[in-house]
Amino acid sequence: MKKFLDDNFLLDNKNSEELYHNYAAEMPIIDYHSHLQPKEIVHDRKFESITEAWLEGDHYKWRAMRTNGINEKYITGSAIPEEKFEKWAETVPQTVRNPLYHWTHLELKRYFGIEKLLNKDSSSEIFCKTSEMLKQDSYGCQGILLRMNVETVCTTDDPTDTLGHHKKLNRSDFPVQVLPTFRPDKAYAVEDVSNYNTYLDELTKVSGTKINTLSDLLSALEHRIKYFHEHGCRLSDHGIEQFYVLLQNGLSAEAIFKKIRTGTKLEKEEVVRLKQTILHELAKMYHNKSWVQQYHLGAIRNANSRMMRELGPDTGFDSIGDFAQGKALALFLDGLDATNQLAKTVLYNLNPRDNELIGTMIGNFNDGSIAGKMQFGSAWWFLDQKDGMEKQLNTLSNMGLLSRFVGMLTDSRSFLSFPRHEYFRRILCNLIGKDVQNGELPNDMKLLGGIVQNICYHNAKAYFNFESKKIHV
Amino acid sequence: MKKFLDDNFLLDNKNSEELYHNYAAEMPIIDYHSHLQPKEIVHDRKFESITEAWLEGDHYKWRAMRTNGINEKYITGSAIPEEKFEKWAETVPQTVRNPLYHWTHLELKRYFGIEKLLNKDSSSEIFCKTSEMLKQDSYGCQGILLRMNVETVCTTDDPTDTLGHHKKLNRSDFPVQVLPTFRPDKAYAVEDVSNYNTYLDELTKVSGTKINTLSDLLSALEHRIKYFHEHGCRLSDHGIEQFYVLLQNGLSAEAIFKKIRTGTKLEKEEVVRLKQTILHELAKMYHNKSWVQQYHLGAIRNANSRMMRELGPDTGFDSIGDFAQGKALALFLDGLDATNQLAKTVLYNLNPRDNELIGTMIGNFNDGSIAGKMQFGSAWWFLDQKDGMEKQLNTLSNMGLLSRFVGMLTDSRSFLSFPRHEYFRRILCNLIGKDVQNGELPNDMKLLGGIVQNICYHNAKAYFNFESKKIHV
Amino acid sequence: MKKFLDDNFLLDNKNSEELYHNYAAEMPIIDYHSHLQPKEIVHDRKFESITEAWLEGDHYKWRAMRTNGINEKYITGSAIPEEKFEKWAETVPQTVRNPLYHWTHLELKRYFGIEKLLNKDSSSEIFCKTSEMLKQDSYGCQGILLRMNVETVCTTDDPTDTLGHHKKLNRSDFPVQVLPTFRPDKAYAVEDVSNYNTYLDELTKVSGTKINTLSDLLSALEHRIKYFHEHGCRLSDHGIEQFYVLLQNGLSAEAIFKKIRTGTKLEKEEVVRLKQTILHELAKMYHNKSWVQQYHLGAIRNANSRMMRELGPDTGFDSIGDFAQGKALALFLDGLDATNQLAKTVLYNLNPRDNELIGTMIGNFNDGSIAGKMQFGSAWWFLDQKDGMEKQLNTLSNMGLLSRFVGMLTDSRSFLSFPRHEYFRRILCNLIGKDVQNGELPNDMKLLGGIVQNICYHNAKAYFNFESKKIHV
Repeated sequence: MKKFLDDNFLLDNKNSEELYHNYAAEMPIIDYHSHLQPKEIVHDRKFESITEAWLEGDHYKWRAMRTNGINEKYITGSAIPEEKFEKWAETVPQTVRNPLYHWTHLELKRYFGIEKLLNKDSSSEIFCKTSEMLKQDSYGCQGILLRMNVETVCTTDDPTDTLGHHKKLNRSDFPVQVLPTFRPDKAYAVEDVSNYNTYLDELTKVSGTKINTLSDLLSALEHRIKYFHEHGCRLSDHGIEQFYVLLQNGLSAEAIFKKIRTGTKLEKEEVVRLKQTILHELAKMYHNKSWVQQYHLGAIRNANSRMMRELGPDTGFDSIGDFAQGKALALFLDGLDATNQLAKTVLYNLNPRDNELIGTMIGNFNDGSIAGKMQFGSAWWFLDQKDGMEKQLNTLSNMGLLSRFVGMLTDSRSFLSFPRHEYFRRILCNLIGKDVQNGELPNDMKLLGGIVQNICYHNAKAYFNFESKKIHV
Repeated sequence: MKKFLDDNFLLDNKNSEELYHNYAAEMPIIDYHSHLQPKEIVHDRKFESITEAWLEGDHYKWRAMRTNGINEKYITGSAIPEEKFEKWAETVPQTVRNPLYHWTHLELKRYFGIEKLLNKDSSSEIFCKTSEMLKQDSYGCQGILLRMNVETVCTTDDPTDTLGHHKKLNRSDFPVQVLPTFRPDKAYAVEDVSNYNTYLDELTKVSGTKINTLSDLLSALEHRIKYFHEHGCRLSDHGIEQFYVLLQNGLSAEAIFKKIRTGTKLEKEEVVRLKQTILHELAKMYHNKSWVQQYHLGAIRNANSRMMRELGPDTGFDSIGDFAQGKALALFLDGLDATNQLAKTVLYNLNPRDNELIGTMIGNFNDGSIAGKMQFGSAWWFLDQKDGMEKQLNTLSNMGLLSRFVGMLTDSRSFLSFPRHEYFRRILCNLIGKDVQNGELPNDMKLLGGIVQNICYHNAKAYFNFESKKIHV
Repeated sequence: MKKFLDDNFLLDNKNSEELYHNYAAEMPIIDYHSHLQPKEIVHDRKFESITEAWLEGDHYKWRAMRTNGINEKYITGSAIPEEKFEKWAETVPQTVRNPLYHWTHLELKRYFGIEKLLNKDSSSEIFCKTSEMLKQDSYGCQGILLRMNVETVCTTDDPTDTLGHHKKLNRSDFPVQVLPTFRPDKAYAVEDVSNYNTYLDELTKVSGTKINTLSDLLSALEHRIKYFHEHGCRLSDHGIEQFYVLLQNGLSAEAIFKKIRTGTKLEKEEVVRLKQTILHELAKMYHNKSWVQQYHLGAIRNANSRMMRELGPDTGFDSIGDFAQGKALALFLDGLDATNQLAKTVLYNLNPRDNELIGTMIGNFNDGSIAGKMQFGSAWWFLDQKDGMEKQLNTLSNMGLLSRFVGMLTDSRSFLSFPRHEYFRRILCNLIGKDVQNGELPNDMKLLGGIVQNICYHNAKAYFNFESKKIHV
């Protein structure tokens, strides 16, 4: 029997151990998609206690606590940090077999050197010890990034963002590269007329472009893309349920845009057409800048309207959807490829039932121009756990070239979640090592170790092609 | 090599063995969803032979026999019991790797102490031996329930049922609690105008409520819910393909109901609206009674119209569908939660491709009010086998809290299928024990054994909150 | 650690080894679905080099090369065979964990006795050695079929094919039986008006039936079915995205057919109705001839319009779709069964998320008339690898009778892909042997070995019921 969370955690044979310890472990981290707040990095925020660091915004933990019957007071409510932490500690043993159980103990070990299991009994001791440590200078947000061997972090930013924090970081001597990502979801959130028009006013202000027509909107967005690019951005990101097969008839996108600008609610088909048109035009701009475009497909968001009113979005009331993806995705990509304007693309899929669809779709648009141009993104959100990662890695292996994969990202709001890169690397090495063990791969550690290092680091480095730090001053 | 079906069947390491033998095995059975006939329990029915006990209504076996090329005469037809059994015996070796192979031999072993494999050669001997034993008093339906350590059985009953058998059982000194479940599928089977109106007439009779309007129907159903509640019912159940996203326009549900009452066939969209409205209103009534509501989602039923005409429903001509579930399910649950009228809910999913959808959907409505309020039901029907169970358990583990799961049920028409609880428990213990073995869980048998016992028994006990036997006399 | 690709490749225990070596390995191959060119068999084509044999038409390899960043010149372009092979050799190490890695080395070993791994360094040596061997008489297309113990090959042929090559082969003393398969996809490709009318002109010519009406078309097709039958054909095949649930209203199929014959583009709903009508009528003809009908469901084909224009279909730009399958498939099969005109049927499913749907759908129409009448076809195309095969075999085992499965086929354009039968057999034996090892199946090698041999050979032999060679002279 193996000890819980020992050095060979998740590595079940000698080959896997060798691949992890001798090849993967030392690679720096390029966290090319995260939701860290650049402001907190600039200010080198220190956390009052582990409650702030762990429970302030982590809706994974919130969901688990709610499922465990914990009152909202102790989750997002008025309880004091010690109390909230105790309720979380009490919940942890109930999370066995959930990734939270692994993450929690891996984070306690890697950041704080704590080997004890977290539960009601150990709660108070662990609260005190971690809170003490978090007060040290080396446990500020900057210290944490350094400690975790992070080379680059990409944040997620609205087109209206002035990137002030990124500028400051770029001018500072903090050695970790912190780059913005262009995430224009609000620029096509045309379901809500009033919010949308308000947003366009903000975009007008920041871009200096008066937005009366769709063409104005596109100019404004192009202006922001240029601005983001000048500040080191090389990535865009989109959260959408699905792409759509458009009907032939109906109003033009330009006419639909005018309609919404007059404050009129759009028909469902109009929403779809306008959204898709904007996405298409944005994609051409990304290609023009040689960016990588990312699409996060398939979430049902804010499913609980009562809690949405009380707590807002991103509070743990989202789930996996079952949207039709194939035909419309193929048409969207083909529409760009047809004019040779398809940018490098990463497709993230939230419903594992569609893994094989995505794993084969990327093959339709890999055209030999660069290795791994089209990427099947790492297991995302609810799938960011051992089973989910293994399914994504196996599908990618079976349907495409694992060796060309750009690997892991945290997608996290927490500075404490970098051990997920370790988690991913162990799982990756385990799969490959097992194949060697079983005689399904040759025992060629140079070849396989090289592939592992490519997936952990070099592929992303080459693919995203970030400029070195401190160029944009 | 392990011996087939030995004491450690399905347990592949010491930790799993310990969890099963020391924690799971002794737990009583709460079979909270079955299709047993209360009449047979009241009358303590004895089976003439194993043919009646095994083959009278078990469409799993019928399907296997048809696939094996056996003529219908030997399945549901005129052949004598010995002949039918022989054809089944001949089919058994062809079912290797199907759960029927395991169930068959597990049932022979647990009920009859027979270790021999069933096949053409052993057919006659096993037929005689089992038929002999089935004549003993202790092999009546009551004896079987006692023998299997069953504490509670919930049957499945139409709202028009007078629950006469349940009353008798409740008054008897038979120690197993036999409770009704409210299954009103016919109350919204509005596709078939004539059958529906006939059904409403029956409902009128039993409820004493004249049903002219939708509102009358709801009153009648509420009346029956009250009646069922008084007779110990704490559960409802629904078999539906999917929920629906309703269109904004069209007739009101009340108007549609009037239309069908005049004998007019409904349009597809009207069917959907009426059905969904009734489901919504029923769900509010369940919440009002603090019941648990169950939804069995995703079957294509009676796909073979020729055999439907010859043999009727539930004869082995159903299959797994691919219905869109996400959005409409979210809206249905949210519509109830919005007014704080969402009852405790169990969602059963027939298509494993939707496991992750269901596993995350429940998290949207777990609000901390009670632990595990929203449940992802155990692997159902075609999925009620090792792979299906492992997938459900793994998805639930990854997406929610396995520890709060209410566990297994037979969903069976047969008194001989209680070893499926054992089957489930072994699989559950095996998964958890393997994680300990691999170092993915700590070797804390007290914690893990406690969780196992909760899933096998205590969680269901607390969740369904049945009153003790013999209160309703 | 096991040696890569040794004698016990993919066999992880003694029982699996015994099943493979003592039962499976010796069985002849019935390759009942392939895309081999009968012309090449008639002429006993010799390949100039391994480039022709491996890379001329294998779009699996082309996709991998494109994903690896190889320029099209070296794939389908003007580069010389040595250069193309070198680019492939360079790609091979990047395909680790993809089935191409296994297939490549298995084919080098089985056809050429080469144990070396293919990569840039070994490229030239392997190119020379294989090209040398391919010049030998025994390495012509006929020699290869004999070498691989192939008893029967079914090709894939358009209804307009005159089957001249099949006739010659049938008259020759080449001992392998080469039979046509009726694949009338073009007879209902009604999306493209102009191509469709051109095709009907060809069909008119070869059938001698003037095609003005739908009824004429069906007569012409019936004529061709008769002709194919006389030349040994016992199988049809269809590549379709999905079946459709037809609307009640709209033009009749006959009227829609007239519309397209006047050169008018059809509405979407008309396409669907006409297509489905033709499929239904064809299916009745197959039943009438006691053929087996095959349906390959779920591909998105020619997703890259730019490459479609440049290279045409079947060049590596297809992927897995997510079509709704359940209801319409049930209705299609039921529509035939209702009049007792449902032929033996093999359903191939491209999206593994629908495995369980297909695995249970076949059970709805297995009526005891013959064992295994309805078949869940072997893992297809992108799924033709270890994971895909295991999923298909496990689903079939769980939902139906594995023992009645007709087993493997190559579906290949290449004479070098027969080791896929070996690959399949190893995986099959491994699954069954593992179950014995784990105590999930009894150690009855006679029973299990018999089942293995049935799946590898005897089931297909009985199911397809091909006439012996040389009857149709």
